[in-house]
Amino acid sequence: MKHFTSIQDVDNLSSLLEEAKQLKHNPFLYETFGKHATIGLIFFNPSLRTRLSSQKAARNLGMEPIVMNINEDSWKIETEYGVIMDGDKSEHIKEAAGVIGRYCDIIGIRSFARFEDREKEYKEPIIQNFIKYSGVPVISLEGATAHPLQAFADLITMEMYKQTEKPKVVLSWAPHPKPLPQAVSNSFVRWMKAAGYDLVITHPEGYELCEEFTEGIPIEYDQKAAFKDADFIYPKSWASYSQYGKVLTQNRSWTVDAEKMELTNNAKLLHCLPVRRNMVVSDEVLDGPNSLVLEEAENRVVSAQTVMKQLLTPNQTDSGELIV
Amino acid sequence: MKHFTSIQDVDNLSSLLEEAKQLKHNPFLYETFGKHATIGLIFFNPSLRTRLSSQKAARNLGMEPIVMNINEDSWKIETEYGVIMDGDKSEHIKEAAGVIGRYCDIIGIRSFARFEDREKEYKEPIIQNFIKYSGVPVISLEGATAHPLQAFADLITMEMYKQTEKPKVVLSWAPHPKPLPQAVSNSFVRWMKAAGYDLVITHPEGYELCEEFTEGIPIEYDQKAAFKDADFIYPKSWASYSQYGKVLTQNRSWTVDAEKMELTNNAKLLHCLPVRRNMVVSDEVLDGPNSLVLEEAENRVVSAQTVMKQLLTPNQTDSGELIV
Amino acid sequence: MKHFTSIQDVDNLSSLLEEAKQLKHNPFLYETFGKHATIGLIFFNPSLRTRLSSQKAARNLGMEPIVMNINEDSWKIETEYGVIMDGDKSEHIKEAAGVIGRYCDIIGIRSFARFEDREKEYKEPIIQNFIKYSGVPVISLEGATAHPLQAFADLITMEMYKQTEKPKVVLSWAPHPKPLPQAVSNSFVRWMKAAGYDLVITHPEGYELCEEFTEGIPIEYDQKAAFKDADFIYPKSWASYSQYGKVLTQNRSWTVDAEKMELTNNAKLLHCLPVRRNMVVSDEVLDGPNSLVLEEAENRVVSAQTVMKQLLTPNQTDSGELIV
Repeated sequence: MKHFTSIQDVDNLSSLLEEAKQLKHNPFLYETFGKHATIGLIFFNPSLRTRLSSQKAARNLGMEPIVMNINEDSWKIETEYGVIMDGDKSEHIKEAAGVIGRYCDIIGIRSFARFEDREKEYKEPIIQNFIKYSGVPVISLEGATAHPLQAFADLITMEMYKQTEKPKVVLSWAPHPKPLPQAVSNSFVRWMKAAGYDLVITHPEGYELCEEFTEGIPIEYDQKAAFKDADFIYPKSWASYSQYGKVLTQNRSWTVDAEKMELTNNAKLLHCLPVRRNMVVSDEVLDGPNSLVLEEAENRVVSAQTVMKQLLTPNQTDSGELIV
Repeated sequence: MKHFTSIQDVDNLSSLLEEAKQLKHNPFLYETFGKHATIGLIFFNPSLRTRLSSQKAARNLGMEPIVMNINEDSWKIETEYGVIMDGDKSEHIKEAAGVIGRYCDIIGIRSFARFEDREKEYKEPIIQNFIKYSGVPVISLEGATAHPLQAFADLITMEMYKQTEKPKVVLSWAPHPKPLPQAVSNSFVRWMKAAGYDLVITHPEGYELCEEFTEGIPIEYDQKAAFKDADFIYPKSWASYSQYGKVLTQNRSWTVDAEKMELTNNAKLLHCLPVRRNMVVSDEVLDGPNSLVLEEAENRVVSAQTVMKQLLTPNQTDSGELIV
Repeated sequence: MKHFTSIQDVDNLSSLLEEAKQLKHNPFLYETFGKHATIGLIFFNPSLRTRLSSQKAARNLGMEPIVMNINEDSWKIETEYGVIMDGDKSEHIKEAAGVIGRYCDIIGIRSFARFEDREKEYKEPIIQNFIKYSGVPVISLEGATAHPLQAFADLITMEMYKQTEKPKVVLSWAPHPKPLPQAVSNSFVRWMKAAGYDLVITHPEGYELCEEFTEGIPIEYDQKAAFKDADFIYPKSWASYSQYGKVLTQNRSWTVDAEKMELTNNAKLLHCLPVRRNMVVSDEVLDGPNSLVLEEAENRVVSAQTVMKQLLTPNQTDSGELIV
């Protein structure tokens, strides 16, 4: 693994899951593995879970994390090439990435979609420029189109709780007052595919995700039909992809509640958090015995630590064997 | 000690003071005691002393501190239960606390009074919800009603400098351009009581603190009378409790100056800092030989470290004996 | 060395450079040298390189860095003495510095010029007050008038790449949309003088730097004449000193481009970063083989680490010999 920006960077998912299980069981097994290494955690957007879990993951490996809020601790960044920089952006991403790469052995980047220019944002210019110019491994801490550390944590959690080899999983669109990125949903779809789980997506018409991600996955517009016999329910809001960044409806008939959960096979509830209570999912379900959301958040340390360990390993295979 | 949000959490004050003295003398005595433990320091409000001293205290014990500014690094938090979260608050405190509790072994919370709803604020909803939902020990880094780490540092300082067993101490209201919380004053009163010191409170009428804290403590409205024979003077501004959050006067005749200090028994000056010079206390007194304010600030490391060590100790008594 | 706020604090530049080379070669040679020591990194202004490189430098020496943004993590600071603090400034620098000095073994301060009061700013009140009141060694992380860690990193870089004993160096004013401080330029001039390099300054009339810094250095108003046979070109924007803080021109004929570089002795390009592309220097030159800007940024760790090590050394000589 050279970078970690999507499932496509993973060579061998099952050996990655094996390593995750090992680190979940013993977080300090490799506590000097990252000695003398620095990880830069660069936030263009706010964060709670990612901020805390990635610092903790780094420390568990003996690395030094340095956290930076761009735009707040620093200044605005230009991403276009060839421009005369006479505006409000003080530094070009080429220098910013180049410099941070001189200070850090790994760089984590959080950079959300802004819903301004779909074509541009779906190319992930911030993350891709860091890959191009920093010269070190880059981890997505959630980009415009993907949040692979979250999807990996989701999968780790499901592997712990699943009761059949290939469980039925429903990704269920949810109402929300603000337009949310498609990143979590896109990644979840891809990781479920890679794990061979039986995924169904349900959402109102107009909320179709980018086909590049959903190709081959059934879409069921009837939420109740989708829930039938499900083993895991993952409610999640996202803004429209076709009408990029629009909130088409806030229809609360899509809120996941106890009645809908009755339709499932005693399904477990997943959510990446933060969650809008009684918009996305009812208090009753979120606080109920089948809710895995805190376990899932806890596994964010495991997914981050597993990925960081891989990226620290020179010429490694995904099985974690060192080829020195 | 399970949490540290007020003097009422302390089982045995004299053994806690003994441990503080030991850590003051040798800050690195337990430098691996907190190995593998993480403390989350969560700031809903700005901080200088608390931010620095709590990080340093954690490091002295070998713990990893992770600092987070809520509202700035993260997002707004809902504290009401049962609401439909369709407004500007992105996360409920139940999840925020639950998740942070999964990442941290101890959580410190700073959350000031906002002077909006006295009854609600005096219930300390932020701190109490963290206690309820995080599942780990919680330290108040100053709540709406109490600042016990400050009061403990005050007491450590006074124990070092006092010349009689039960010194006379005056908490003296001071003018200030802004409405300040009652937290420091409330805690100071309680800790002086617990230590058996001879405390007098002096302030203009209308500035009575909450009786729950001051019960049994004499109030003297004549500042000069109060200062007579005092061993310690603690000037401190606070907003009205009865007219919650109001600044009733900025009368500078209450400013502590050299002339008033003449009335005392060569009293030492205390203040929690930050201090408004020449509003709360004159330059002359603050810069004089009897000012202990920097020593007091330095002891914030000692109070924090002593408390953290207690909370790290499984099934401990306050004497610091491990019962494994 | 007691503090590090300008070249004038350096006792012996060549032994300092020797130590820098050693640390560049082996950053972890003294990795426990700063054990139990804390460095406070206090930012009154934004930062990227300084923020990251100083944290890394501290860690390389085994020190604990604590980073604080004043005005954002904390509150506004009063620097005048004798005032009645009834305005928007909550804390006096005397207490802020005094307290931070109780928590930290070294303090780094970033505090830019505001272009409000030249006489006052050129006295560096923030840094000087920290020296006066903190009681510990102070490092300038860029003041109003000087940025010595940058100039030291510049010199380290030039020492690595120079091909003659005393290379010809041109500090060349550059257009910029905003008024920038003179700090980087002032320090660069002083360090080049101290190193005995052959420095020429070129800029439009009206952009003369403070004579206290430039005394004895030739000023050439014809940029092309200045570039002739140069070994190093350092383009840098600064606002007018005589019309303090004014941008007199944004004339892009002063932008450094490939054609101008042709006039030099195959000169290397230096810049402190961040750099406005195609304002200060063209893409072609910045991305060309003679650009040292990333190497220079990397050497910010080396300069910071060398200085911190000196300041940690009790009764040390600049050669780094311990006199215990």
